[in-house]
Amino acid sequence: MPDAARLEAFATPVDTPFVVEHVCEEFTSLCPVTGQPDFGEVVVRFEPRAGSAGGTCVELKSLKLYLQSFRDEGIYYEAVTNRIRDDLAALMNPVWLVVETRWRVRGGIRSVITATHGEVP
Amino acid sequence: MPDAARLEAFATPVDTPFVVEHVCEEFTSLCPVTGQPDFGEVVVRFEPRAGSAGGTCVELKSLKLYLQSFRDEGIYYEAVTNRIRDDLAALMNPVWLVVETRWRVRGGIRSVITATHGEVP
Amino acid sequence: MPDAARLEAFATPVDTPFVVEHVCEEFTSLCPVTGQPDFGEVVVRFEPRAGSAGGTCVELKSLKLYLQSFRDEGIYYEAVTNRIRDDLAALMNPVWLVVETRWRVRGGIRSVITATHGEVP
Amino acid sequence: MPDAARLEAFATPVDTPFVVEHVCEEFTSLCPVTGQPDFGEVVVRFEPRAGSAGGTCVELKSLKLYLQSFRDEGIYYEAVTNRIRDDLAALMNPVWLVVETRWRVRGGIRSVITATHGEVP
Amino acid sequence: MPDAARLEAFATPVDTPFVVEHVCEEFTSLCPVTGQPDFGEVVVRFEPRAGSAGGTCVELKSLKLYLQSFRDEGIYYEAVTNRIRDDLAALMNPVWLVVETRWRVRGGIRSVITATHGEVP
Amino acid sequence: MPDAARLEAFATPVDTPFVVEHVCEEFTSLCPVTGQPDFGEVVVRFEPRAGSAGGTCVELKSLKLYLQSFRDEGIYYEAVTNRIRDDLAALMNPVWLVVETRWRVRGGIRSVITATHGEVP
Amino acid sequence: MPDAARLEAFATPVDTPFVVEHVCEEFTSLCPVTGQPDFGEVVVRFEPRAGSAGGTCVELKSLKLYLQSFRDEGIYYEAVTNRIRDDLAALMNPVWLVVETRWRVRGGIRSVITATHGEVP
Amino acid sequence: MPDAARLEAFATPVDTPFVVEHVCEEFTSLCPVTGQPDFGEVVVRFEPRAGSAGGTCVELKSLKLYLQSFRDEGIYYEAVTNRIRDDLAALMNPVWLVVETRWRVRGGIRSVITATHGEVP
Amino acid sequence: MPDAARLEAFATPVDTPFVVEHVCEEFTSLCPVTGQPDFGEVVVRFEPRAGSAGGTCVELKSLKLYLQSFRDEGIYYEAVTNRIRDDLAALMNPVWLVVETRWRVRGGIRSVITATHGEVP
Amino acid sequence: MPDAARLEAFATPVDTPFVVEHVCEEFTSLCPVTGQPDFGEVVVRFEPRAGSAGGTCVELKSLKLYLQSFRDEGIYYEAVTNRIRDDLAALMNPVWLVVETRWRVRGGIRSVITATHGEVP
Repeated sequence: MPDAARLEAFATPVDTPFVVEHVCEEFTSLCPVTGQPDFGEVVVRFEPRAGSAGGTCVELKSLKLYLQSFRDEGIYYEAVTNRIRDDLAALMNPVWLVVETRWRVRGGIRSVITATHGEVP
Repeated sequence: MPDAARLEAFATPVDTPFVVEHVCEEFTSLCPVTGQPDFGEVVVRFEPRAGSAGGTCVELKSLKLYLQSFRDEGIYYEAVTNRIRDDLAALMNPVWLVVETRWRVRGGIRSVITATHGEVP
Repeated sequence: MPDAARLEAFATPVDTPFVVEHVCEEFTSLCPVTGQPDFGEVVVRFEPRAGSAGGTCVELKSLKLYLQSFRDEGIYYEAVTNRIRDDLAALMNPVWLVVETRWRVRGGIRSVITATHGEVP
Repeated sequence: MPDAARLEAFATPVDTPFVVEHVCEEFTSLCPVTGQPDFGEVVVRFEPRAGSAGGTCVELKSLKLYLQSFRDEGIYYEAVTNRIRDDLAALMNPVWLVVETRWRVRGGIRSVITATHGEVP
Repeated sequence: MPDAARLEAFATPVDTPFVVEHVCEEFTSLCPVTGQPDFGEVVVRFEPRAGSAGGTCVELKSLKLYLQSFRDEGIYYEAVTNRIRDDLAALMNPVWLVVETRWRVRGGIRSVITATHGEVP
Repeated sequence: MPDAARLEAFATPVDTPFVVEHVCEEFTSLCPVTGQPDFGEVVVRFEPRAGSAGGTCVELKSLKLYLQSFRDEGIYYEAVTNRIRDDLAALMNPVWLVVETRWRVRGGIRSVITATHGEVP
Repeated sequence: MPDAARLEAFATPVDTPFVVEHVCEEFTSLCPVTGQPDFGEVVVRFEPRAGSAGGTCVELKSLKLYLQSFRDEGIYYEAVTNRIRDDLAALMNPVWLVVETRWRVRGGIRSVITATHGEVP
Repeated sequence: MPDAARLEAFATPVDTPFVVEHVCEEFTSLCPVTGQPDFGEVVVRFEPRAGSAGGTCVELKSLKLYLQSFRDEGIYYEAVTNRIRDDLAALMNPVWLVVETRWRVRGGIRSVITATHGEVP
Repeated sequence: MPDAARLEAFATPVDTPFVVEHVCEEFTSLCPVTGQPDFGEVVVRFEPRAGSAGGTCVELKSLKLYLQSFRDEGIYYEAVTNRIRDDLAALMNPVWLVVETRWRVRGGIRSVITATHGEVP
Repeated sequence: MPDAARLEAFATPVDTPFVVEHVCEEFTSLCPVTGQPDFGEVVVRFEPRAGSAGGTCVELKSLKLYLQSFRDEGIYYEAVTNRIRDDLAALMNPVWLVVETRWRVRGGIRSVITATHGEVP
């Protein structure tokens, strides 16, 4: 079951601007209708708030474990994407955040869902 | 015969912004002049209206069946593209919508037609 | 309905050795179980018999029309491949012949079927 | 001899916005100095005027024949590009038009010439 | 739990030679030591025995379900590969069979395991 | 008109073994049926006879001019390929020679013709 | 130990605008937690201040030696990126500067960190 | 020795807007410190002034000879780039001009230098 | 210091034939002359002896640690390659073994060294 | 002037079999007819004789300097290739040796010359 409690963050180490991108090429969940596995790629990109403003960054290993927690979950593409966006936004309260999920072909169609938080440049 | 009745939509699950892209790599219709088959790729990209505003998203399997309904239709590139744009705009009334069709080489020329609805960012 | 009668051949113009390869990137037929369209690529490669020995080569436009005749046929991957091999072998009686069909992803699996006639080098 | 009379247009079928791109990968003309053949690719991209405003779109087969009419013409890269732009602008009076020619290596240098008409977005 | 009972076969439809390749790009199992998910690609390639000799071919959908049955299994790369080879060899008794598994990077190393049955040409 | 008289050769400079490959990416001729231009790539690969045995190699600029002489010729793919093979074999009498022509898509099919002379390793 | 003292700069040779990009494809440091090596690519892009304004550009060989000085350092991705940005900004005081680090896969996730200084266009 | 006198220009043939790009993939000069050869690619992109305003375009063959004149010159990356920009700006006085040099790897680092003249869009 | 003691092996689990390939994309050692770091890729491919014949396979994590032990070693390309071949051959006594090292560009030249043990098919 | 005296060799360090490949991507010489620069890539691949049999391997930096010595030489493609083969064969007396030169496009044709020494597997 997707489990936001697995997510951990560390304090942004500086106040100067930077952007972080993590690409997980090994994501899998289940189709909520057929129970068949879905496979895809999850891209997380954000600008953390400055350290002096209490900003944080998601810790990499905890992100891996969090994404693995979708493995047995029956969940739609849109819900996966919005859920990850919401959980990470709640964790870090970043300046902005983009979550993009790219799914492998199903019935001759491949899909990409992109959810945002804040003003993405 | 292209059949918009095959299209189904589900209520946008959230009010936070997201974008959906579906790429159908297996599209075929017929040339209205020669009756010869045309082959191409159809890209559908849109931002749905928020769920609380009555927004909807096209359902993936219904989109597949709708696109298959062009298989025996004699129809020009431009007409395919505008028709899909119109049918999806009527179905979802999205914030914006782009339909792009990319056609395989005919007579040494390959074509791409792009139709839009609303203010595409 | 697949129609070998559409195939035409011309006399091999020389007696010196050569090899011909035609790649049709726009093949479609129907799944015999679900009726859903299948999409793929068909490769035909052969060494014609020498002209002085009555050898012939398949004519390109007739090959296109023959391959199009599978469009409404419900037929398995293996049957498509073996059928094309048999029809072309009967037409040309070539020194050797390879027919390879490469199918797009279905259920996360993509398939390639290869049928041969004679001693392929 | 380049022959704009070969170009034909059809009335834009709708008033909703769309963009058309044709890529001819098989263009050849002659160098006006040496008489040696030049080879390249021609990209034509435009937004037609709306149908209700008398807008038109270039017909695909006529475009092919028009581009073939440069085959025996001794003409500079810049002149090819500007000529196609002018002929198509005169034919369609589009909202905007881009003509891009991409030439194969000559003397270790490959060139791309881009001519525009109207306000290209 | 890997379940060979899910595998089904159909009688080889012809006696003329052909080769079948199925590539499953969506394979996942678990590391038997850490319990962490592994991801990879499974290639199955074989020449079936002739139909008149009682030969059979693995059915595509049953192959998909069989490969999915490794999803919750803690199992080494070598064991996955040899197990699939053994199960398919037992099912079809093919002229020859190759099973190749290609695994994603772990600790900076990516691995490919290839198991064979019979005389692979 | 294809003109073998344009071909020139120079004496093989050594007796030690070597192989030459020339790839002309800018070949064009005409379809003998429709008069429409065909476009392709011509690969010439050979092992020259030793210099002390009177061996020769085709001179590069003369090869270019020879290949250009097909520009206005209505000629089939097979005839182009066999003709180049015959003209170069007559010119050089090489140990072995391969001529491969790769043609752009026509009617959704792209073709490759390969003609040989001598024992190609 | 990362050593900014290894960095050297030369006076910007002109006052006209230009941009410099250096891509080091051979970067390695150590994970501060596990001590395991990390591998990546470092991109440095900047617009130097004009020569007449006392502007300088980092010298290429000194940049190589500086980047090598991270080889035995246990340091996080974010810290590497911000440190290089700070050291180069201090060295050159450029109009703007971007430092991008692209890391190889760890636990199925690959990361890209981008730090900036000044107004990047 | 780099020799701007080799550059020639011809009058811009039209007053309608167009852009020219020349890519020389075969550039070499010498390192001013070690005397070792450097290798790279030079991209020249510009919008010429209108013909009626006295605008000119650099002639292609003269550009080739000019770029070859750096072959025996010991010169830094930045100096090559700024020098070509200055010489071409002096020759043509274009609306805008970009000169980009892309250098092969030295010491594990590859560099790209970009110099501009005028307002590049 | 390269340390064969870090290598561990496990008993080959079956007697049926299979082949193992491990590709380490993150290898670094030092140039024995200049002390500068070298970077490359190491490919290890082998057929283990059968389990019933006492055959073993190198364990993946131990291979990673062994390859990391070259990090501070000043050693030539050829010596790296032969050393890994010898250490793995001593560990596993495989039917055959190939070790291939692919090194990044130094002085404009990139190198590949391949060492073998036994009869490689 | 090509200068074999720049080549140095070191004793083959072992008696077990291995193969060496060096790829120089930065080769340039002059056309002996026009004086224009030619650009290409030189691949050297060989199996050295065993150390105990007095075998040697070409030293990498000396190979670089040797290849640079062609920079001002007017010399044909075939002569470059045979000369390098002869000089390296004389230096090392290897079990076998392949020299391959790949030249950039001239007059629309790109060439590859391959010279061998001994029995290449």
